[in-house]
Amino acid sequence: MDSRIVEHAKILVDYSTEVKRGDMVVIQANPDAHELAVAVARQVAKAGGSSVTMMISEEIDRAKYDGADDATLEVFPDHLMAMAEKTDVYIVLRSPVNTKALANVDPKRIMITAKTTKPIFDLITKKRWVLTVHPSATLAQQGNMSLEEYRDFVYDACLHDWEKESKNLYMMKEHLESHKDIRFCGPETDLYASTESRIWIAADGKFNMPDGEVFTAPVEDTVEGKIYFDVPFLEQGKVIEGVRLKFEKGEVVDFSAEKEESTLKQILEIDDGARRLGEMAIGTNRGIKHYTMNILFDEKLGDTVHCALGMAFPECNGVNDSAIHVDMIKRMHDGEIIAGNEIIYSKGKYFYEK
Amino acid sequence: MDSRIVEHAKILVDYSTEVKRGDMVVIQANPDAHELAVAVARQVAKAGGSSVTMMISEEIDRAKYDGADDATLEVFPDHLMAMAEKTDVYIVLRSPVNTKALANVDPKRIMITAKTTKPIFDLITKKRWVLTVHPSATLAQQGNMSLEEYRDFVYDACLHDWEKESKNLYMMKEHLESHKDIRFCGPETDLYASTESRIWIAADGKFNMPDGEVFTAPVEDTVEGKIYFDVPFLEQGKVIEGVRLKFEKGEVVDFSAEKEESTLKQILEIDDGARRLGEMAIGTNRGIKHYTMNILFDEKLGDTVHCALGMAFPECNGVNDSAIHVDMIKRMHDGEIIAGNEIIYSKGKYFYEK
Repeated sequence: MDSRIVEHAKILVDYSTEVKRGDMVVIQANPDAHELAVAVARQVAKAGGSSVTMMISEEIDRAKYDGADDATLEVFPDHLMAMAEKTDVYIVLRSPVNTKALANVDPKRIMITAKTTKPIFDLITKKRWVLTVHPSATLAQQGNMSLEEYRDFVYDACLHDWEKESKNLYMMKEHLESHKDIRFCGPETDLYASTESRIWIAADGKFNMPDGEVFTAPVEDTVEGKIYFDVPFLEQGKVIEGVRLKFEKGEVVDFSAEKEESTLKQILEIDDGARRLGEMAIGTNRGIKHYTMNILFDEKLGDTVHCALGMAFPECNGVNDSAIHVDMIKRMHDGEIIAGNEIIYSKGKYFYEK
Repeated sequence: MDSRIVEHAKILVDYSTEVKRGDMVVIQANPDAHELAVAVARQVAKAGGSSVTMMISEEIDRAKYDGADDATLEVFPDHLMAMAEKTDVYIVLRSPVNTKALANVDPKRIMITAKTTKPIFDLITKKRWVLTVHPSATLAQQGNMSLEEYRDFVYDACLHDWEKESKNLYMMKEHLESHKDIRFCGPETDLYASTESRIWIAADGKFNMPDGEVFTAPVEDTVEGKIYFDVPFLEQGKVIEGVRLKFEKGEVVDFSAEKEESTLKQILEIDDGARRLGEMAIGTNRGIKHYTMNILFDEKLGDTVHCALGMAFPECNGVNDSAIHVDMIKRMHDGEIIAGNEIIYSKGKYFYEK
């Protein structure tokens, strides 16, 4: 077995979810993630845990929509809930064969299923859990790479000394929380927000792998200024590029995009919360070399910031409510991040690297 | 999707397990059985059931043995039990990537796991459940066929009118139970046993697919005579061929094999029950064209009988106890099956075909 798969499994089991003797573990894996599932199952057993493996499959999900009437979509999966109640740790290994399998399913029906299974989702997210990907041809293709290159890409992003990275991320969180505002400056960009009484979260690989960001929910009405997002992103099946937003009293008052401006307009019109920022964040993972339009990776890109239109995370004390949460990313190599009177990041260096 | 996969799924869901609205269903599938899992999930949804899919993997099983100490093997999977308690139907889709993945695991450790999970196994076998295979290159290779030929082989065996076959099997059960003994006659063969107060089971596709046999547990001490098993079979990793057994008062008093006689000897010496018959049965599935050394298929071959050394099934009122249950098969094209004064089968025809 590729030693990097073993290393990946060790991080997920020993660091991210801290599996210990007697833990009940559910591994969720696509068929294409089988090899990582083998490594994770071995590592869980080494830690003294008891694992079972569920099969994730977008094709199975789609077939269920195809077969079920709406009443069937509302049947609550008691057996899945019963398992969740007895489970300590979820380890999710994504490697979709086909990322577009649900493209032609009516979004309303997807919402019915999401509503039906919400109590299970809410329960699982209170447990120890981690989400990662296993490199596959499908994901490599989506990222414009060969499989061999994509493997390097994934492992460069994931196989870090996370104990050490965690220290840096918590140091940054402390510095950010010692101030009452945040400002992103750079080419075509000067965006300000109050962060008073908001919490910054150090995302240090406990729930996502790869990880590496510090994020908060800005005080909704205080967002002022403009920002240019220069990293393309995928939303509603479209690649949106070169987004420029202008904020006054927390609301988008002007916008443009170099590609798919009409899709951006649709997003902004979904609901009131969609015109406000639910998240402001700083990416720190320098192992991620470039964007791949997979948000699990892109939002953690080192030397970037990102903002999300829409839903704010309650764990940050955010209150903005929306049906959407759309992340947009900006490179900061020529920019600065300032909190209060402190420079958090300037031209390629975080404060702790000085 | 191959229409035969759809048909296979319909039989499993609508006939074998009779899934109905509100049923909680667990699909267990190897990664190589993914396509059949898609079809089964759709069919369960059509019937109004709620399905989740578990991944079966011999490689994952082996990795768990590799990682776990003996204490970990004894950790009871509470989460799997909790799910089982809330599940109505299990549908098991086997398509092993590697049938030898557990070949080098200490059998004692496999016994520990079997003992640990026995309460779950016992619970599941009280539910509606069915076991089948999905054609794969691995299974085709084991059966000495191309994948294309193996697909034909599997679907010829499974895609029957099972309602009709069930009627024939139940008719045969009634005839057999109206007599008090059974006799297999043919070249080098004349084997007699009392079946008084024993139950004949009509295996009509409710638990196995393919299916097609009627079986009982003979009265242990009454088995007399000799039999020549002319179909090779796989046991303990060895292909055993041309077994001849002689019985007196229920016990094997003489034996030989054309190939692997020493393995046969080992089997007979495992325990006292291993020298007695736990099962006598009549295979009826003419859709299975030839043996493939996969017992799920071979024991149902039309125009055959089979006997098993070792454990008897309690549901037949059998009492023979043993750690083993080794099925051996005999072609009956030139033979006869007689119950009391009735000819059940003679030279290519079952009584109901006359």
